This record gives sequence, C-alpha cells and structure tokens, in this order.
Amino acid sequence: MNTTIETILSHKSVRKFKDEKLTREQVETLIRSAQAASTSSMIQAYTIIGVTDPGKKAELAAIAGNQSYVEKNGHFFVFCADLYRHEVIGEKEEANVAHSLESTEKFMVALIDAALAAQNASVAAESMGLGICYIGGIRNDLGAVSEVLDIPERVIPLFGLAVGVPDEDNDLKPRRPLSHVYHENTYRSDKETVAKELEEYDETVASYYHERTNGQRVDTWSAQMARMLSGKKRMYMKEFVEKKKFDLK
Amino acid sequence: MNTTIETILSHKSVRKFKDEKLTREQVETLIRSAQAASTSSMIQAYTIIGVTDPGKKAELAAIAGNQSYVEKNGHFFVFCADLYRHEVIGEKEEANVAHSLESTEKFMVALIDAALAAQNASVAAESMGLGICYIGGIRNDLGAVSEVLDIPERVIPLFGLAVGVPDEDNDLKPRRPLSHVYHENTYRSDKETVAKELEEYDETVASYYHERTNGQRVDTWSAQMARMLSGKKRMYMKEFVEKKKFDLK
Repeated sequence: MNTTIETILSHKSVRKFKDEKLTREQVETLIRSAQAASTSSMIQAYTIIGVTDPGKKAELAAIAGNQSYVEKNGHFFVFCADLYRHEVIGEKEEANVAHSLESTEKFMVALIDAALAAQNASVAAESMGLGICYIGGIRNDLGAVSEVLDIPERVIPLFGLAVGVPDEDNDLKPRRPLSHVYHENTYRSDKETVAKELEEYDETVASYYHERTNGQRVDTWSAQMARMLSGKKRMYMKEFVEKKKFDLK
Repeated sequence: MNTTIETILSHKSVRKFKDEKLTREQVETLIRSAQAASTSSMIQAYTIIGVTDPGKKAELAAIAGNQSYVEKNGHFFVFCADLYRHEVIGEKEEANVAHSLESTEKFMVALIDAALAAQNASVAAESMGLGICYIGGIRNDLGAVSEVLDIPERVIPLFGLAVGVPDEDNDLKPRRPLSHVYHENTYRSDKETVAKELEEYDETVASYYHERTNGQRVDTWSAQMARMLSGKKRMYMKEFVEKKKFDLK
C-alpha cells in the first residue's frame, strides 16, 4: 500500500482544530489540487470561496447549526456549483445557453464537478497532515449563505470544508461492507438480500457504538437512517435551486 | 510537495489502456478508497457497479457515443447515486422516509456522496500508476444504462470510470487561473471583471491548442463552452431523474 492510499484509508473527519491559520501557500496548494480533478468537457463548473472574515465565519457557523469548527479552523472554504461565468460567455459569444444552464443535466454536472474538486482538496490537505470536515450544515439556509457571500444567480453553495491542524483524534467509523457497496454487472436489488445485508451492517455499527460509549449508545445504522429520513429536512431546497435558475428543464 | 499532491497535480485523463485487467486486490483497494471518503451523516448514498461482462461493456460503450475505452480498459466502474436501501430501511423500520428520499436535498446529497467516493478511487488508482477517465457519456441514455445494469427506482447511474494501465501520455490541459476559481469572502460577480478573466483564460487555451496542433486548431474556452452549451443536450434528464423518484420535492 502506498502513502496516498494510506492517507485516503485513514480519513476521519476532524471537528476540533488548533488555532493555526493555513499559510497562503497551503491554501493555494489545496485550490490547485482541487482544480486538477476531472471536469466534464472542461466546463469547470464550480467556484471556491475562502471565508476568512471572522464576522462572516460566525454567521456561517450559526447557519450550520452552531458548529464551532466552522468558525475555528485553519481555513474555511465554501464549494459552489457555478454556471455564472457560462452565462457571461453566452452574452459575450451571442449564444443561447440558457436552456443548457437551466437543465437538470447541467445541475448534475456542476454538482459532480464541485464535489470532485473538493475531494481532491481534502485528500491533499490530509496528505499534508491537516484535518478536514465537510459542512453540509450550510445547506440549512442557502438563502442566508447567499447573502453572506453575495452569491448571484447560476451559483449554488453546496457545502463548506473546514481545514486545519487537528486537535483531536477520532475513530474510523465502520463503513458498509465492500460486498454491499460493490455490485458486479447487475444491480442486486433483491429485497431479502438487502435486508440481510442491512442486518449484518447494523450489528457492526451497534458494536461500534457499544464499545465506544461503554454500552451507553444502543443504535444501528438502519435506526439512525430511519430517524434522519423521517424528518422533513431542507424542504426549501427545490425552490431555492430553481430560484438560482438550476434544474428547471 | 509530497507524493500524494504530485499524483493529484499530474492528473490527465487516459483514453487508451493496455490490455491488462486489474487484479481483484486492485479493484478492492479502489472500492475501499472510495468508501473512505466523507459521507453526509453516514448516509453512504451510492453504489458502485463493476462491469466485466464484455457484452454489457459493449452496450455501455455504444451508449456513451462509441467510446472504445469504455470497452477496452483494466476495469470499468459505474458510480450510482443510491437511496434504494434507504427505502428498504423505511419499510423495515416502519418509518415514512419517502418525502426525504424524493427531496432535492437528498438528490444533491447522493450526487455529492457518489462523486466524493469516485474521486477517492481515482486518486488511489493514479497513485498506483493506473490511468483513469470519467465517462459522462453514459448519461446520453440512462434509461438504456438502467436496462443493461438492472437499475431499480431510487438509483441513478451518474458516470462511468474507466481504469487501467495507460497506453498513452496526454498533455495537462490548462485549467482556469487560480485567481478566477478562488474568491475570498465575497463572490466576485462583476461582469466586467468576469469578461476580462475570460479573455485572459481564452488566450491561454488558444495558445495551448495552437502549440498542440501546429496552429491547426483555433479555439478558445469561451468558444468551446458557447458551442457546447448552445446545444440542447440530455434534455430527458429531468424526466428520468423524477421517474427514478429523485428530485421531486
């Protein structure tokens, strides 16, 4: 196993960082790494916003549900799906691009592009000994995030990425067994098999919580997912996305 | 610069592979790497399908626009956004999860989850000396892909990933300048600035094509994007996604 794969396999989210800012060089290395990711037909449909202003960081932390590590970290990034400059290209080149920009296909392309870039930045950060945490919590209120960061139409903030020198060491959370995640030639959708797989994984997750909390936490992955998915969370999203002129066609 | 960052920064898509299959161990290392990526609240909303059946590979290659490297590679993966087992969890735990599973929020979560996983697999592959190419072309007809791979509702194939021993060496394509991609504290949406940035990048891209083709190809990024986005491509996508019960609410 090489050092890159070791870095990848030992990923754990870090939610407590030392009070040490990333250097300009570190930030640039992360952005360059992000940019080196594959991009659909060179569309490069994303923008990365670094948030260094303490007031803005505090506002984003509040939006994300008072997550202190949104404020306290080495650097905070917001990754955005972005077709804004493609709109400017349409005006400049006198091309009618609105139909494309507003399509579900391009919404998907922009999300995937931004996520590939973010994961490159994450792996690069971890290879430098830094810790990272994705912050989906900013999606609690993307209208508010858009105001804080002056986000125009054709741009959707997707998630934050807190990066910094780790000040905690977490456990590796058990992922689903490889055989559940990886299918060959055919999607295995047989419900009995899936239910059996869920039981198997539930036991693993239950043991993990049991050991970690000295028997205090009794939980399974299925129970966790059922609780999470029973709630109606971020149901404003469709309207927001369409207001930003994505995913309309 | 460490070796991981070197690997990341030297990424180039590979579209010609040697006739050498990945070993089972290599495939598993890639899947484990994919799984080590961050996932939103442990939702793990993706499945990876390895396609080894020559007939199915040929069908996927045809769908993707007769891309030979979809057929000829060391291993071919299809990354899917997947909330199918979460539906099974809902039935098993008697929880009403449909509203969540059908939300735009969860559509975004599943796309991002799958893309983060795929990029980890890509970086891992490249660190092993393998080459990779994302295949967005399968989105030409996801209905047909779903038939080939028996994809149920709540699952959307997003892109392929061809992996193998490289049999060509491509140039690094010039990405947008870092200062265009990275903004600080505020999204810079001023159209004059954006237009100036586009001109700057267009010159870089024009030189790249000029040098690479001995002056044969006269092109800019703006012209390329305007051509691509003027077309109405994959306009069936919204309907397909909704048919798979995503992105409805």
